[in-house]
Amino acid sequence: MTTHTLTDSVDFADIKSAAARIAPHAQVTPVMRSRSINALVGAELLFKCENLQRVGAFKFRGACNAVWSLSDAQSKKGVVTHSSGNHGAALALAARTRGIPAHVIVPEGAVRSKVEAIETYGATLHRCAASTTAREEACERVRQQTGATLVHPYADPRVIAGQGTAAMELFAQTDPLDVLVAPVGGGGLISGCAIATAALAPGCKVIAAEPSGAADTFESMQKGERVGAFVPDTICDGLRTLVGEVNFRILRQHGVEVLTVDDDETIAAMRLIWLRMKIIVEPSSAIVLAAVIRHRQRFAGMRIGLILSGGNVDLDALPWLAQRPSIARPA
Amino acid sequence: MTTHTLTDSVDFADIKSAAARIAPHAQVTPVMRSRSINALVGAELLFKCENLQRVGAFKFRGACNAVWSLSDAQSKKGVVTHSSGNHGAALALAARTRGIPAHVIVPEGAVRSKVEAIETYGATLHRCAASTTAREEACERVRQQTGATLVHPYADPRVIAGQGTAAMELFAQTDPLDVLVAPVGGGGLISGCAIATAALAPGCKVIAAEPSGAADTFESMQKGERVGAFVPDTICDGLRTLVGEVNFRILRQHGVEVLTVDDDETIAAMRLIWLRMKIIVEPSSAIVLAAVIRHRQRFAGMRIGLILSGGNVDLDALPWLAQRPSIARPA
Repeated sequence: MTTHTLTDSVDFADIKSAAARIAPHAQVTPVMRSRSINALVGAELLFKCENLQRVGAFKFRGACNAVWSLSDAQSKKGVVTHSSGNHGAALALAARTRGIPAHVIVPEGAVRSKVEAIETYGATLHRCAASTTAREEACERVRQQTGATLVHPYADPRVIAGQGTAAMELFAQTDPLDVLVAPVGGGGLISGCAIATAALAPGCKVIAAEPSGAADTFESMQKGERVGAFVPDTICDGLRTLVGEVNFRILRQHGVEVLTVDDDETIAAMRLIWLRMKIIVEPSSAIVLAAVIRHRQRFAGMRIGLILSGGNVDLDALPWLAQRPSIARPA
Repeated sequence: MTTHTLTDSVDFADIKSAAARIAPHAQVTPVMRSRSINALVGAELLFKCENLQRVGAFKFRGACNAVWSLSDAQSKKGVVTHSSGNHGAALALAARTRGIPAHVIVPEGAVRSKVEAIETYGATLHRCAASTTAREEACERVRQQTGATLVHPYADPRVIAGQGTAAMELFAQTDPLDVLVAPVGGGGLISGCAIATAALAPGCKVIAAEPSGAADTFESMQKGERVGAFVPDTICDGLRTLVGEVNFRILRQHGVEVLTVDDDETIAAMRLIWLRMKIIVEPSSAIVLAAVIRHRQRFAGMRIGLILSGGNVDLDALPWLAQRPSIARPA
């Protein structure tokens, strides 16, 4: 892995600073409710709609905080990352808000709609092979050639602090919550949310939802140490990443619990959100509702915040939606 | 057509009363914006999200106003309608909010997801053949057997007043608008909105968007008299209806302009809303954006309110979405 020379401690003061820094650029996303989903689950769900964030994902928060944390001298050389997903698009747009260059390494096989979004926001694309090694080498090469600052998708403290503003904002928008659920891939969002929750709502339990087919965080938390490389098998394209070292440490420190969910359950939850709430979420977001539905006896009667992390779906790839089982309708 | 013995005059006082009557039951729906769609169109668009209304459509406003306008004695006998679309579901839920029976006539070939919604909300379904005559006969039979009050989908003054609350609410949520665009099928929404606009924003131009394949309102306005029966050919399943007599009169009185749009344009606009705004709208809603895009030179630089009327799409029927042309991406 690329070495991060920054200090990797993040505290609530960093999240508050991030909130102030991104306020001129990021959306305050709405909190939505659905009577029919509440009736189905038997709990009160508050959905924080980061799918309605700029770029269609919470990733804009972290990328924006990183970009606006740079000194003027640093910023002129631009930023670089090796994410072809929502973080790549988010960094591209964040760089545009400051008028600085963004370089995004795009591996073969990246989702077309997401690559198009990155281009639309004006970043320079650098193609490479699909392996992690190829991506990191390409990224390092660009960094050396341009002097651009690397903004890692999740293991960067500025990014973690930015993502934590999603939870901070949610707490300001709602009455107290019993539980907060967010997805975990690399862990930028959930670790930022855990820090914000410890400061603002210490009585609120923080839960990470993870695909069964990419359950490295679950295993790592069980073992008490971070598991190594694994082969993800999940439709949640945003959650195929190994949890970051710093992210894992924050999750342990805050006693975050990980719940795993099968892809079938995630797709059923995604259909339910589309049908009942009329908003578009991607599978990596719908997993939070799937986790609550799977464990609905445990969560009965509680007030639960769910972070809907993004809504970037390739519409042309949708026909599979129709071929999956749907879950029961509410009575 | 079934005879309506009610007086069919509607004025702004009726809309204000409707707003008070439905307030405990209906959602105040949000107004959304999209920077990228604004950039594409070259105007400032404010989308009134009635797809996020209860039942997923503005229809709940009119149905709710009708149900809560009934005397206690009338209400006990329930309500009946012959719409298998959003109005049927809306009337079913509105009746449930008052704890009274609802009867809905459902013709052969009605959209499955909409019929399921009507059942979910607890209405009694009455099946009949697909013709207008069969529907009206079945409706009249149920009315005579039960004493239920007919609530027509659009030609009922209580319904028109209820739908007008969508525009009234929008004006309260935004700075002044230059133009307001709403779809026209039977004309309940657009006629209510025209009355509200005349009272609240007389400088705001009201425009109806209508499918080229069901352009009876356009023709009727051109001729100065309501055209007779026609055969609709459009994917906008909510807009296949002939404009109502009373609705037509209100449109003429307020000088509403009708713009027609081809289905291709409507589908491209629907994709754009899904992709850029991350909300689900049905074709009958997306037509308002299609009308603005078609005439974007005329609307350049204006502040335009668009009523996104509903979001009830049969997800299982979605593959066709992928086979249609999309429109150009914003620069």
